[in-house]
Amino acid sequence: MPFINGGVTAAKGFTAAGIHAGIRKNKSKLDLALLVADATAVCAATYTTNVVKADPLLVTQQHLANGQARAVVINSGNANACAIDGYANAQLTAREAAAVLGVDPTDVLVASTGVIGQRLPVETIVAALPTLSQKLSVDGAHDAALAIMTTDTTCKECAVTLELSGVTVTIGGMAKGSGMIHPNMGTMLAFVTTDCAIERPLLQQALRGVTDKTFNRVSVDGDTSTNDMCIVMASGAAHNALISEKNDDYAAFVQALTAVCRTLARAMAADGEGASKLLTCNVSNAPDEASAVALAKSVISSSLVKTAMFGRDANWGRVICALGYSGVAFDPNTVDIAFAADGQTLAVCRQGRGLDFDEDAALALLSHHEVDINVDLHAGNASADAYGCDLTYGYVKINGDYRT
Amino acid sequence: MPFINGGVTAAKGFTAAGIHAGIRKNKSKLDLALLVADATAVCAATYTTNVVKADPLLVTQQHLANGQARAVVINSGNANACAIDGYANAQLTAREAAAVLGVDPTDVLVASTGVIGQRLPVETIVAALPTLSQKLSVDGAHDAALAIMTTDTTCKECAVTLELSGVTVTIGGMAKGSGMIHPNMGTMLAFVTTDCAIERPLLQQALRGVTDKTFNRVSVDGDTSTNDMCIVMASGAAHNALISEKNDDYAAFVQALTAVCRTLARAMAADGEGASKLLTCNVSNAPDEASAVALAKSVISSSLVKTAMFGRDANWGRVICALGYSGVAFDPNTVDIAFAADGQTLAVCRQGRGLDFDEDAALALLSHHEVDINVDLHAGNASADAYGCDLTYGYVKINGDYRT
Repeated sequence: MPFINGGVTAAKGFTAAGIHAGIRKNKSKLDLALLVADATAVCAATYTTNVVKADPLLVTQQHLANGQARAVVINSGNANACAIDGYANAQLTAREAAAVLGVDPTDVLVASTGVIGQRLPVETIVAALPTLSQKLSVDGAHDAALAIMTTDTTCKECAVTLELSGVTVTIGGMAKGSGMIHPNMGTMLAFVTTDCAIERPLLQQALRGVTDKTFNRVSVDGDTSTNDMCIVMASGAAHNALISEKNDDYAAFVQALTAVCRTLARAMAADGEGASKLLTCNVSNAPDEASAVALAKSVISSSLVKTAMFGRDANWGRVICALGYSGVAFDPNTVDIAFAADGQTLAVCRQGRGLDFDEDAALALLSHHEVDINVDLHAGNASADAYGCDLTYGYVKINGDYRT
Repeated sequence: MPFINGGVTAAKGFTAAGIHAGIRKNKSKLDLALLVADATAVCAATYTTNVVKADPLLVTQQHLANGQARAVVINSGNANACAIDGYANAQLTAREAAAVLGVDPTDVLVASTGVIGQRLPVETIVAALPTLSQKLSVDGAHDAALAIMTTDTTCKECAVTLELSGVTVTIGGMAKGSGMIHPNMGTMLAFVTTDCAIERPLLQQALRGVTDKTFNRVSVDGDTSTNDMCIVMASGAAHNALISEKNDDYAAFVQALTAVCRTLARAMAADGEGASKLLTCNVSNAPDEASAVALAKSVISSSLVKTAMFGRDANWGRVICALGYSGVAFDPNTVDIAFAADGQTLAVCRQGRGLDFDEDAALALLSHHEVDINVDLHAGNASADAYGCDLTYGYVKINGDYRT
């Protein structure tokens, strides 16, 4: 299953665009994106479980009740959450975009990301929609991906192809991080397109399962956003045999969707606000997958583990401490812990007790940009990984003066 | 109920001492404390709920099975958690201290705080015990409080007196913070003494209830330690009428114990690693106390709220976001939020939507050392508060190079 260049327009049947509409003051920062399917696409979505849900999310949920859509309008610079006239402004955005595109308003989805609580400059968005729609093209995916970035320092897009009974199918996506990232049964902003022909209930099932194994395994700062949303649009333009049951084609599609979402999820973790390192916690030989996930996420979310990794300090005591307060019952006396990077592994704890290790070797290993924290419970056959980043001065700086 | 000077020896019947034993390299840092009751004291304790429990905690639990003790040995600089020979070394410490003091080994409790996973230098501790016991005095409380500090920048001790049917009773305590602080049904290291005559089951009930309202309301970094422990020792030397039922004396005692523990808990939060501010989140008009506690703790634990407070940024969107992912169901459309400090209040959100407010006034208000975040749910009569601190460059610095 090869990765190819491209993002949300890699699959047949989609165009995209991104422009600076004026929501953000910095004129070189694109802030409004549009993603359009040539014809009505089958859609699936997952949303934040935060009790406080942004208004664009509520409008999108309503518009997706029939499981299909034509377009998505996404702005950065303003979350349109807890804002005066938030719901009306989200509706207005969809309605105006629909008019420009000549489609039904309920076939337009909306998403926002940025500061909570400030009124959406909907006039600015509406005024920019004609220009934005004129720029729609297959080459517009990158601009769209740029336009949804907030404190992200890297643009997050990827695409893969797969063969389904001899027919080439493509899946591509884009996502944004990089703060207020601790998805819980929903996800942050991510948009995935495919030309696969697949029935809607199966697309939704596939997305739910894949989200749990990819986006929901990421934590940057433990804060689950009000705006998290992942949308998958399937055009069917690849003309593969329609996937209408859990056959081999479905399995291959899920595998490819997982690859796309995992790549975007890991890119979010690596580009977490202020991050200097991508951390992966691998928990193996756990009694069940749910326990493995909870343990791995507890480690990746620990402020003390994250600062230790920033300091290149092999302070594994903080890892076993985070395992211990995860809510999962286990025997500390069978736990092994190792740090790994660049093909090298350093064992630091065996059977719950510290091992002597070379501090210089540890410092060298933890100086890599990608570090794995490997935990072996010796208590079953299940495993899971979770993705995070270190906690740095940069995170404090970014979030100490993000709004003002 | 007046606060008085003093700490763990303010109540009659206790002596204490603290010295530099050599566990820590810095010779000016005291690192070994001893607290002794003149006669056997009735004891109650609460412990961490972390699955990974430090060995001194296990020894103390065993020695407290009979509900009484004479002494506590506490070292800083090493947690004796997940360390080779940890349990044997904790036992040895208690046994050697018992020999020096001429008491039963099971009447000696032990507690440790510091780095996880390194072997306890038990020979250093044992060698220092005779000197330490010679220094025991009523004036030794402050040295003991200094000796249990780790990254703390302030010494945490306090005492109150109360009248029980005309008899003066005293309660005093000491505690240490200031990282790996997110107590959950247990607490961090805290030692409280009283000369109150009270039966053991009532003392335990009082401590459990008070801990839930004080220490368990604190979060510095979301990390629940392996070593958390709170011990209360009651000498009975005040010769008040023995409290053997939940009468008025019991209520007065609980009130005073709450005052001592809340003072120590707030001192921990204010002195959280790297903290520049004490944050208190007050949740009012919630449907029940458990919901109010969960909401307040979610706000106080949010990295984004904590960094905003460091940046003096009235970014209340992060507050409502943290309420939303607390796990408590509520209607966002009835939530009011205000910041308060030094007697002034600034309303920033009403009925779940942002209010216009004066940014300069907000900056001035949030520049105070103590800031309250007031949340009114308008959904019931229960309330709760929680204590935390801001997230600063200092936290990253301290924990990026704590061990090495």
